[in-house]
Amino acid sequence: MTVCSRNSGESRLERGRRALAEIDGHAGEAVVAALADIAPDFATYLIEFPFGDIYARPGLDLRAREIATIAALTAMGNAAPQLKIHVQAGLNVGLSRAEITEVIMQMAVYAGFPAALNGLFAAKAVFDACPTRGESQPV
Amino acid sequence: MTVCSRNSGESRLERGRRALAEIDGHAGEAVVAALADIAPDFATYLIEFPFGDIYARPGLDLRAREIATIAALTAMGNAAPQLKIHVQAGLNVGLSRAEITEVIMQMAVYAGFPAALNGLFAAKAVFDACPTRGESQPV
Amino acid sequence: MTVCSRNSGESRLERGRRALAEIDGHAGEAVVAALADIAPDFATYLIEFPFGDIYARPGLDLRAREIATIAALTAMGNAAPQLKIHVQAGLNVGLSRAEITEVIMQMAVYAGFPAALNGLFAAKAVFDACPTRGESQPV
Amino acid sequence: MTVCSRNSGESRLERGRRALAEIDGHAGEAVVAALADIAPDFATYLIEFPFGDIYARPGLDLRAREIATIAALTAMGNAAPQLKIHVQAGLNVGLSRAEITEVIMQMAVYAGFPAALNGLFAAKAVFDACPTRGESQPV
Amino acid sequence: MTVCSRNSGESRLERGRRALAEIDGHAGEAVVAALADIAPDFATYLIEFPFGDIYARPGLDLRAREIATIAALTAMGNAAPQLKIHVQAGLNVGLSRAEITEVIMQMAVYAGFPAALNGLFAAKAVFDACPTRGESQPV
Amino acid sequence: MTVCSRNSGESRLERGRRALAEIDGHAGEAVVAALADIAPDFATYLIEFPFGDIYARPGLDLRAREIATIAALTAMGNAAPQLKIHVQAGLNVGLSRAEITEVIMQMAVYAGFPAALNGLFAAKAVFDACPTRGESQPV
Repeated sequence: MTVCSRNSGESRLERGRRALAEIDGHAGEAVVAALADIAPDFATYLIEFPFGDIYARPGLDLRAREIATIAALTAMGNAAPQLKIHVQAGLNVGLSRAEITEVIMQMAVYAGFPAALNGLFAAKAVFDACPTRGESQPV
Repeated sequence: MTVCSRNSGESRLERGRRALAEIDGHAGEAVVAALADIAPDFATYLIEFPFGDIYARPGLDLRAREIATIAALTAMGNAAPQLKIHVQAGLNVGLSRAEITEVIMQMAVYAGFPAALNGLFAAKAVFDACPTRGESQPV
Repeated sequence: MTVCSRNSGESRLERGRRALAEIDGHAGEAVVAALADIAPDFATYLIEFPFGDIYARPGLDLRAREIATIAALTAMGNAAPQLKIHVQAGLNVGLSRAEITEVIMQMAVYAGFPAALNGLFAAKAVFDACPTRGESQPV
Repeated sequence: MTVCSRNSGESRLERGRRALAEIDGHAGEAVVAALADIAPDFATYLIEFPFGDIYARPGLDLRAREIATIAALTAMGNAAPQLKIHVQAGLNVGLSRAEITEVIMQMAVYAGFPAALNGLFAAKAVFDACPTRGESQPV
Repeated sequence: MTVCSRNSGESRLERGRRALAEIDGHAGEAVVAALADIAPDFATYLIEFPFGDIYARPGLDLRAREIATIAALTAMGNAAPQLKIHVQAGLNVGLSRAEITEVIMQMAVYAGFPAALNGLFAAKAVFDACPTRGESQPV
Repeated sequence: MTVCSRNSGESRLERGRRALAEIDGHAGEAVVAALADIAPDFATYLIEFPFGDIYARPGLDLRAREIATIAALTAMGNAAPQLKIHVQAGLNVGLSRAEITEVIMQMAVYAGFPAALNGLFAAKAVFDACPTRGESQPV
């Protein structure tokens, strides 16, 4: 699955909004809303560059992109709110809980056990909050 | 593709050696050899835990595992030798150069442009060194 | 603005106390007080080296020094309490909210969007807590 | 003090459980229990590799190993829960509060004052929670 | 000094090219050229987002922006090539060597002495390579 | 072993010079010399705060302090020159090669295998360069 079809008449902002809605759902909208009174331009950049430019590119499907993002945020270990959003995003684009858990566990090898543990507990918080999502896909 | 079939009679070390050979090829063997006179036990742990335990797990195929590793090592930005080994490993398990490049580019969003740039140049060094590998797979 | 005039008869500790009061205000005193029963010597080092030695140096004004500190703490992404203190310190030494917001937004380029987002939300918490400070200066 | 005597008939998991109980006490068991419903295999790896393989090695006593771990977790600055567990573990294996405080203070040199400050406050939280432990040893 | 006047008819790419040339000079062009055969789209993003969007914003002058960038790259400690480019960029936009040195020294407080030392040696390499630049401006 | 006896008439700079010579030997002097023409004041700070203040404190012996430093620099993974200096410093203050190797191996648990591998190769470079030092102590 990539971000639907690209429409050549669509602006970066429009394409980004579509990708953000598809990937992050309400959590993405909440971040954009929270930026409104401190840095509204930054909300625009956030929609345009990561979502309008990067996630909308055709060369890698959204499952693979979310695997990459969950891995990176777990390994960096300093962005728990964003990791939670992308655990949910991973479920949204079709990763199973088991697959997300595998990605995070693997980070123990590259970033150490504390990073992996904190990543697993972040994932658990997301899984517990939406008990029926993400398990319709067979692993 | 996962690490072939798991053989229940196989030890972690044997399974790890098989996974290491399949994924990292000669580069993995070179790391193990380089450890021989400073920390030979560490070479054993490196084979057993990352490769015998983690990469050999069935829940995620090796293409997905290398996407996760390339993403994390790019984002962390402090492990250039290991990133190069895993760019090659990504090619070995069936990722195309274009897919690897997509993963690294995406890291600009999560770890900044310098991390992505240094990752791209590491990948380029690997691609240039083995000009005919990794492009037989369609993107 | 630099740390007032240097007085040659003044000790590092005295000069540091003066710089700390001028830059961090009550937040700096609170950190020093919190250290009293676990590591009082560390409170002394904190006053002497960062404030008595570094911030008191004449070669860069305090606005520039706070820009540097806010940038670094945002980019590192693992020191939220200190980032908040320095957002307030930036206001104290004459940076506007808009300037602080610009510095933090810029970190998306060097440390990724999550670091910048978390920095913006830390700044927002400081701005919201003291609604009338920091905007008397023209940008 | 190292992890008691190694018993050649003991498995990595058994040796790891013994080391974990000796070093981390209840906190280690709590982490393992918390993993049970998200990643039980990861709990096994956590016991086997860090504790069954590394901490059980004879070449360095547990006091020295905890000094190394407290230093690293303070310097990395992104693993507060694990740092607290290892401050307690340091007390468990015979480090005094004063020694732990020295290690954390020293990290200001290598990872900056914010990392050291956050480490000191994490240690203070552990010390305050168990007021009578860890001070029977002379510094 | 900000990026000249913004011209409303100018595209992000055009504005970014102008900002990149003004700030990074030949070093920026070299990075863009080096990306040409591995990730040409990434060169476009690099011009558009950091330079066309962020550096071209009016709220902070280029001297302040380079102080922020030099501070962040020094503190992160894993992007030596980019730090060197921005030390040169700092000179290009009017920072003196002494000011750049102050910013880097200050990072010892926030990221530790090794980060500051490596930053100072990176700056020295740039200063030594272009012995007559950057000192025409009074501090 | 701590830094000899503290002499109350001694300045921080004098005490720091003595500690630096004892711990880092020629490597420390080389760093100070290299700073002379870019940031001579920073050389003073480097002697005064880390060595005159921290390493000279009586609460932890130099073996323990070097264990902490080697652990932290290995885990941070972005300060190879300083890690090499402290591997040598560890030998200087009485750690054996085997003990240093144990500390670095342990970092695989907290910072991942790449950090530990790069630390081991840094240590090997130091050990190979001075083949007869550091092995007089029994492990």
